[in-house]
Amino acid sequence: MEDLKRLIREVPDYPKAGILFYDLTTLLQDKKGFHDLIERLGDKFEGKKIDVVAGIEARGFIFAPALAYRLGAGFVPVRKANKLPWKTAQVTYQLEYGTDKLEIHQDAVKRGERVLICDDLLATGGTAAAAVQLLSQLGAEITGAAFAVELKFLKGREKLNGTEVFSLIQYDK
Amino acid sequence: MEDLKRLIREVPDYPKAGILFYDLTTLLQDKKGFHDLIERLGDKFEGKKIDVVAGIEARGFIFAPALAYRLGAGFVPVRKANKLPWKTAQVTYQLEYGTDKLEIHQDAVKRGERVLICDDLLATGGTAAAAVQLLSQLGAEITGAAFAVELKFLKGREKLNGTEVFSLIQYDK
Repeated sequence: MEDLKRLIREVPDYPKAGILFYDLTTLLQDKKGFHDLIERLGDKFEGKKIDVVAGIEARGFIFAPALAYRLGAGFVPVRKANKLPWKTAQVTYQLEYGTDKLEIHQDAVKRGERVLICDDLLATGGTAAAAVQLLSQLGAEITGAAFAVELKFLKGREKLNGTEVFSLIQYDK
Repeated sequence: MEDLKRLIREVPDYPKAGILFYDLTTLLQDKKGFHDLIERLGDKFEGKKIDVVAGIEARGFIFAPALAYRLGAGFVPVRKANKLPWKTAQVTYQLEYGTDKLEIHQDAVKRGERVLICDDLLATGGTAAAAVQLLSQLGAEITGAAFAVELKFLKGREKLNGTEVFSLIQYDK
Protein backbone atom coordinates (compact mmCIF):
# COMPACT_ATOMS: atom_id res chain seq x y z
CA MET A 1 0.00 0.00 0.00
CA GLU A 2 2.94 2.30 -0.69
CA ASP A 3 0.77 4.38 -3.04
CA LEU A 4 -1.63 5.22 -0.22
CA LYS A 5 1.23 5.78 2.24
CA ARG A 6 2.56 8.53 0.03
CA LEU A 7 -0.68 10.44 0.57
CA ILE A 8 -0.38 10.31 4.37
CA ARG A 9 1.23 13.34 6.05
CA GLU A 10 3.73 12.71 8.81
CA VAL A 11 3.49 15.34 11.55
CA PRO A 12 6.40 15.25 14.04
CA ASP A 13 5.85 15.98 17.74
CA TYR A 14 2.07 15.68 17.64
CA PRO A 15 0.13 15.44 19.91
CA LYS A 16 3.26 15.73 22.06
CA ALA A 17 7.05 15.86 21.70
CA GLY A 18 8.60 12.66 20.38
CA ILE A 19 5.41 11.31 18.78
CA LEU A 20 5.21 11.03 14.99
CA PHE A 21 1.57 11.45 13.98
CA TYR A 22 0.24 9.92 10.77
CA ASP A 23 -2.28 12.43 9.42
CA LEU A 24 -4.78 10.75 7.12
CA THR A 25 -6.60 13.94 6.12
CA THR A 26 -4.29 14.39 3.13
CA LEU A 27 -5.24 10.91 1.95
CA LEU A 28 -8.97 11.44 2.56
CA GLN A 29 -9.12 14.69 0.59
CA ASP A 30 -7.54 13.01 -2.44
CA LYS A 31 -10.37 11.69 -4.66
CA LYS A 32 -8.54 8.68 -5.98
CA GLY A 33 -6.79 7.92 -2.71
CA PHE A 34 -10.02 7.98 -0.74
CA HIS A 35 -11.85 5.89 -3.30
CA ASP A 36 -9.07 3.27 -3.34
CA LEU A 37 -8.96 3.16 0.45
CA ILE A 38 -12.66 2.32 0.76
CA GLU A 39 -12.56 -0.07 -2.21
CA ARG A 40 -9.68 -2.06 -0.76
CA LEU A 41 -11.19 -2.25 2.72
CA GLY A 42 -14.44 -3.30 1.07
CA ASP A 43 -12.79 -5.95 -1.11
CA LYS A 44 -11.42 -7.59 2.01
CA PHE A 45 -14.86 -8.07 3.59
CA GLU A 46 -16.95 -8.56 0.46
CA GLY A 47 -18.94 -11.78 0.68
CA LYS A 48 -18.57 -12.02 4.45
CA LYS A 49 -22.23 -11.16 4.93
CA ILE A 50 -21.63 -8.17 7.18
CA ASP A 51 -24.91 -6.88 8.62
CA VAL A 52 -23.54 -3.73 10.22
CA VAL A 53 -20.25 -1.87 10.42
CA ALA A 54 -19.65 -0.34 13.86
CA GLY A 55 -17.48 2.79 13.85
CA ILE A 56 -15.77 4.26 16.89
CA GLU A 57 -16.08 8.02 17.57
CA ALA A 58 -14.76 10.29 16.13
CA ARG A 59 -12.37 9.23 13.38
CA GLY A 60 -13.92 5.79 13.03
CA PHE A 61 -17.05 7.63 11.84
CA ILE A 62 -15.10 8.68 8.75
CA PHE A 63 -14.38 5.15 7.59
CA ALA A 64 -17.13 2.92 8.93
CA PRO A 65 -20.17 4.43 7.16
CA ALA A 66 -18.41 4.62 3.78
CA LEU A 67 -17.37 1.00 4.24
CA ALA A 68 -20.91 0.09 5.30
CA TYR A 69 -22.29 1.72 2.16
CA ARG A 70 -19.71 -0.13 0.06
CA LEU A 71 -20.71 -3.46 1.64
CA GLY A 72 -24.48 -2.88 1.62
CA ALA A 73 -24.47 -3.00 5.43
CA GLY A 74 -25.93 -0.73 8.11
CA PHE A 75 -23.85 1.57 10.30
CA VAL A 76 -23.74 1.66 14.10
CA PRO A 77 -21.95 4.40 16.08
CA VAL A 78 -19.93 3.50 19.16
CA ARG A 79 -19.70 6.77 21.03
CA LYS A 80 -17.94 8.42 23.94
CA ALA A 81 -19.94 8.78 27.17
CA ASN A 82 -23.23 10.72 27.22
CA LYS A 83 -23.57 11.37 23.50
CA LEU A 84 -26.31 8.90 22.56
CA PRO A 85 -29.95 9.92 23.05
CA TRP A 86 -31.51 6.56 23.96
CA LYS A 87 -30.80 3.62 26.32
CA THR A 88 -27.16 2.55 26.19
CA ALA A 89 -24.86 -0.30 27.09
CA GLN A 90 -21.47 0.80 28.38
CA VAL A 91 -17.94 -0.42 28.81
CA THR A 92 -15.14 1.20 30.82
CA TYR A 93 -11.59 0.53 29.71
CA GLN A 94 -8.06 1.31 30.75
CA LEU A 95 -5.99 4.09 29.18
CA GLU A 96 -2.33 4.80 29.80
CA TYR A 97 -3.45 7.14 32.59
CA GLY A 98 -6.95 6.61 33.95
CA THR A 99 -9.98 5.12 32.22
CA ASP A 100 -12.41 5.95 29.45
CA LYS A 101 -15.90 4.84 28.53
CA LEU A 102 -17.65 3.77 25.31
CA GLU A 103 -21.39 3.53 24.77
CA ILE A 104 -23.72 1.96 22.25
CA HIS A 105 -27.49 1.90 21.94
CA GLN A 106 -28.96 -1.24 23.49
CA ASP A 107 -30.86 -1.97 20.28
CA ALA A 108 -27.97 -1.13 17.93
CA VAL A 109 -27.57 -4.76 16.85
CA LYS A 110 -29.80 -7.79 16.97
CA ARG A 111 -28.55 -10.99 18.59
CA GLY A 112 -26.49 -12.94 16.05
CA GLU A 113 -25.99 -10.08 13.61
CA ARG A 114 -22.61 -10.09 11.91
CA VAL A 115 -20.66 -6.99 12.88
CA LEU A 116 -17.46 -5.54 11.50
CA ILE A 117 -15.73 -3.10 13.86
CA CYS A 118 -13.95 -0.23 12.14
CA ASP A 119 -11.62 2.54 13.24
CA ASP A 120 -9.03 4.73 11.58
CA LEU A 121 -6.08 3.47 13.56
CA LEU A 122 -5.02 0.35 15.45
CA ALA A 123 -2.54 1.54 18.09
CA THR A 124 -2.47 -0.18 21.50
CA GLY A 125 -5.82 -1.80 20.78
CA GLY A 126 -7.53 -0.73 24.01
CA THR A 127 -10.40 1.11 22.36
CA ALA A 128 -11.03 -1.58 19.76
CA ALA A 129 -10.97 -4.32 22.42
CA ALA A 130 -13.54 -2.31 24.40
CA ALA A 131 -15.75 -2.07 21.29
CA VAL A 132 -15.49 -5.85 20.78
CA GLN A 133 -16.56 -6.38 24.39
CA LEU A 134 -19.47 -3.96 24.05
CA LEU A 135 -20.83 -5.54 20.87
CA SER A 136 -20.35 -9.06 22.23
CA GLN A 137 -22.42 -8.08 25.28
CA LEU A 138 -25.26 -7.22 22.91
CA GLY A 139 -25.05 -10.67 21.35
CA ALA A 140 -23.43 -9.65 18.06
CA GLU A 141 -21.18 -11.98 16.15
CA ILE A 142 -17.86 -10.15 15.68
CA THR A 143 -16.80 -10.89 12.12
CA GLY A 144 -13.62 -8.83 12.29
CA ALA A 145 -11.99 -5.51 12.95
CA ALA A 146 -10.83 -3.25 10.12
CA PHE A 147 -8.40 -0.35 10.35
CA ALA A 148 -7.03 2.04 7.77
CA VAL A 149 -3.68 2.18 9.57
CA GLU A 150 -1.91 -0.14 12.02
CA LEU A 151 1.03 0.90 14.20
CA LYS A 152 2.53 -2.59 14.43
CA PHE A 153 5.13 -1.69 17.07
CA LEU A 154 2.32 -1.05 19.58
CA LYS A 155 1.10 -4.66 19.25
CA GLY A 156 -2.60 -3.81 19.32
CA ARG A 157 -3.41 -7.17 17.71
CA GLU A 158 -2.48 -8.94 20.92
CA LYS A 159 -5.34 -7.18 22.72
CA LEU A 160 -7.74 -8.32 19.99
CA ASN A 161 -6.96 -11.99 20.43
CA GLY A 162 -9.72 -14.07 18.85
CA THR A 163 -10.86 -11.32 16.48
CA GLU A 164 -9.80 -11.30 12.83
CA VAL A 165 -7.86 -8.08 12.35
CA PHE A 166 -7.26 -6.40 9.01
CA SER A 167 -5.31 -3.21 8.41
CA LEU A 168 -4.64 -1.65 5.04
CA ILE A 169 -1.49 0.33 5.81
CA GLN A 170 1.14 -0.64 8.37
CA TYR A 171 3.96 1.23 10.07
CA ASP A 172 6.81 -0.50 11.87
CA LYS A 173 7.93 2.55 13.77
CA MET B 1 -39.34 10.50 2.34
CA GLU B 2 -41.95 9.00 4.64
CA ASP B 3 -40.30 5.60 4.30
CA LEU B 4 -37.06 6.93 5.80
CA LYS B 5 -38.92 8.92 8.45
CA ARG B 6 -40.43 5.75 9.78
CA LEU B 7 -36.92 4.52 10.60
CA ILE B 8 -36.08 7.62 12.68
CA ARG B 9 -36.63 7.34 16.42
CA GLU B 10 -38.25 10.24 18.21
CA VAL B 11 -36.81 10.76 21.69
CA PRO B 12 -38.81 13.20 23.86
CA ASP B 13 -37.07 15.54 26.29
CA TYR B 14 -33.58 15.09 24.85
CA PRO B 15 -31.12 16.72 25.32
CA LYS B 16 -33.39 18.67 27.67
CA ALA B 17 -37.04 18.92 28.72
CA GLY B 18 -39.37 20.05 25.95
CA ILE B 19 -37.05 19.12 23.07
CA LEU B 20 -38.05 16.30 20.73
CA PHE B 21 -34.86 14.71 19.39
CA TYR B 22 -34.80 12.94 16.04
CA ASP B 23 -32.46 9.98 16.52
CA LEU B 24 -31.05 8.83 13.18
CA THR B 25 -29.16 5.83 14.59
CA THR B 26 -32.17 3.58 14.00
CA LEU B 27 -32.14 4.62 10.34
CA LEU B 28 -28.38 4.21 9.97
CA GLN B 29 -28.33 0.69 11.40
CA ASP B 30 -30.98 -0.42 8.89
CA LYS B 31 -29.19 -1.80 5.79
CA LYS B 32 -31.75 -0.74 3.28
CA GLY B 33 -32.54 2.56 4.98
CA PHE B 34 -28.88 3.56 5.15
CA HIS B 35 -28.26 2.55 1.56
CA ASP B 36 -31.29 4.52 0.33
CA LEU B 37 -30.27 7.57 2.35
CA ILE B 38 -26.83 7.77 0.76
CA GLU B 39 -28.17 6.92 -2.70
CA ARG B 40 -30.74 9.68 -2.60
CA LEU B 41 -28.31 12.28 -1.30
CA GLY B 42 -25.90 11.15 -4.01
CA ASP B 43 -28.51 11.30 -6.78
CA LYS B 44 -29.12 14.95 -5.94
CA PHE B 45 -25.47 15.94 -6.48
CA GLU B 46 -24.52 13.48 -9.21
CA GLY B 47 -23.08 15.29 -12.20
CA LYS B 48 -22.31 18.44 -10.22
CA LYS B 49 -18.59 17.75 -10.37
CA ILE B 50 -18.05 17.77 -6.62
CA ASP B 51 -14.33 17.61 -5.80
CA VAL B 52 -14.66 17.16 -2.05
CA VAL B 53 -17.41 16.70 0.50
CA ALA B 54 -16.71 18.55 3.75
CA GLY B 55 -18.27 16.98 6.85
CA ILE B 56 -18.77 18.71 10.17
CA GLU B 57 -17.69 16.93 13.39
CA ALA B 58 -19.03 14.63 14.76
CA ARG B 59 -22.26 13.46 13.14
CA GLY B 60 -21.42 15.04 9.79
CA PHE B 61 -18.56 12.53 9.67
CA ILE B 62 -21.16 9.78 9.38
CA PHE B 63 -22.73 11.12 6.19
CA ALA B 64 -20.08 13.11 4.35
CA PRO B 65 -17.52 10.36 3.65
CA ALA B 66 -20.16 7.86 2.49
CA LEU B 67 -21.54 10.56 0.21
CA ALA B 68 -18.02 11.42 -0.99
CA TYR B 69 -17.41 7.76 -1.84
CA ARG B 70 -20.77 7.63 -3.66
CA LEU B 71 -19.85 10.74 -5.70
CA GLY B 72 -16.22 9.81 -6.38
CA ALA B 73 -15.10 12.85 -4.39
CA GLY B 74 -12.58 13.34 -1.59
CA PHE B 75 -13.53 13.97 2.03
CA VAL B 76 -12.48 16.90 4.22
CA PRO B 77 -13.15 17.06 7.97
CA VAL B 78 -14.27 20.32 9.57
CA ARG B 79 -13.43 19.83 13.22
CA LYS B 80 -13.97 21.37 16.62
CA ALA B 81 -11.06 23.38 18.05
CA ASN B 82 -7.65 21.75 18.63
CA LYS B 83 -8.35 18.40 16.99
CA LEU B 84 -6.42 18.75 13.73
CA PRO B 85 -2.69 17.95 13.71
CA TRP B 86 -1.48 20.46 11.10
CA LYS B 87 -1.86 24.19 10.33
CA THR B 88 -5.48 25.29 10.50
CA ALA B 89 -7.82 28.07 9.45
CA GLN B 90 -10.47 28.92 12.05
CA VAL B 91 -13.84 30.53 12.39
CA THR B 92 -15.63 31.56 15.58
CA TYR B 93 -19.40 31.63 15.52
CA GLN B 94 -22.30 32.48 17.75
CA LEU B 95 -24.29 29.90 19.69
CA GLU B 96 -27.45 30.50 21.69
CA TYR B 97 -25.21 31.13 24.69
CA GLY B 98 -21.57 32.00 23.97
CA THR B 99 -19.47 31.07 20.96
CA ASP B 100 -17.89 28.02 19.36
CA LYS B 101 -15.03 27.44 16.94
CA LEU B 102 -14.53 25.31 13.83
CA GLU B 103 -11.20 24.46 12.23
CA ILE B 104 -10.02 23.09 8.91
CA HIS B 105 -6.56 22.31 7.58
CA GLN B 106 -5.19 25.21 5.53
CA ASP B 107 -4.48 22.86 2.62
CA ALA B 108 -7.77 20.95 2.86
CA VAL B 109 -9.02 22.36 -0.44
CA LYS B 110 -7.34 23.95 -3.41
CA ARG B 111 -8.51 27.34 -4.66
CA GLY B 112 -11.52 26.87 -6.94
CA GLU B 113 -12.28 23.29 -5.89
CA ARG B 114 -15.98 22.48 -5.83
CA VAL B 115 -17.06 21.66 -2.28
CA LEU B 116 -20.26 20.18 -0.94
CA ILE B 117 -20.82 20.82 2.77
CA CYS B 118 -22.57 18.00 4.61
CA ASP B 119 -24.02 17.53 8.08
CA ASP B 120 -26.62 15.30 9.66
CA LEU B 121 -29.00 18.07 10.65
CA LEU B 122 -29.90 21.59 9.56
CA ALA B 123 -31.26 23.30 12.68
CA THR B 124 -30.58 27.03 13.22
CA GLY B 125 -27.88 26.93 10.54
CA GLY B 126 -25.15 28.56 12.64
CA THR B 127 -22.66 25.70 12.31
CA ALA B 128 -23.25 25.21 8.60
CA ALA B 129 -22.92 28.96 7.93
CA ALA B 130 -19.61 28.90 9.81
CA ALA B 131 -18.42 26.00 7.64
CA VAL B 132 -19.39 27.92 4.48
CA GLN B 133 -17.39 30.89 5.72
CA LEU B 134 -14.37 28.73 6.54
CA LEU B 135 -14.29 27.01 3.16
CA SER B 136 -14.86 30.26 1.31
CA GLN B 137 -11.84 31.74 3.14
CA LEU B 138 -9.76 28.93 1.65
CA GLY B 139 -10.96 29.85 -1.84
CA ALA B 140 -13.29 26.89 -2.36
CA GLU B 141 -16.36 27.15 -4.54
CA ILE B 142 -19.33 26.19 -2.37
CA THR B 143 -21.51 24.00 -4.58
CA GLY B 144 -24.14 23.39 -1.93
CA ALA B 145 -24.98 22.13 1.53
CA ALA B 146 -26.58 18.73 2.08
CA PHE B 147 -28.36 17.52 5.19
CA ALA B 148 -30.06 14.26 6.07
CA VAL B 149 -32.66 16.10 8.16
CA GLU B 150 -33.93 19.69 8.24
CA LEU B 151 -35.91 21.21 11.12
CA LYS B 152 -37.76 23.72 8.96
CA PHE B 153 -39.28 25.63 11.88
CA LEU B 154 -35.78 26.78 12.93
CA LYS B 155 -35.28 28.53 9.57
CA GLY B 156 -31.65 27.52 9.13
CA ARG B 157 -31.87 28.16 5.38
CA GLU B 158 -32.06 31.87 6.04
CA LYS B 159 -28.57 31.78 7.55
CA LEU B 160 -27.30 29.98 4.44
CA ASN B 161 -28.46 32.66 2.05
CA GLY B 162 -26.64 32.28 -1.27
CA THR B 163 -25.87 28.59 -0.75
CA GLU B 164 -27.96 25.88 -2.41
CA VAL B 165 -29.44 23.84 0.42
CA PHE B 166 -30.75 20.30 0.08
CA SER B 167 -32.29 18.20 2.83
CA LEU B 168 -33.69 14.74 2.42
CA ILE B 169 -36.12 14.61 5.32
CA GLN B 170 -37.98 17.61 6.75
CA TYR B 171 -39.83 18.21 9.98
CA ASP B 172 -42.23 21.10 10.49
CA LYS B 173 -42.23 20.90 14.27
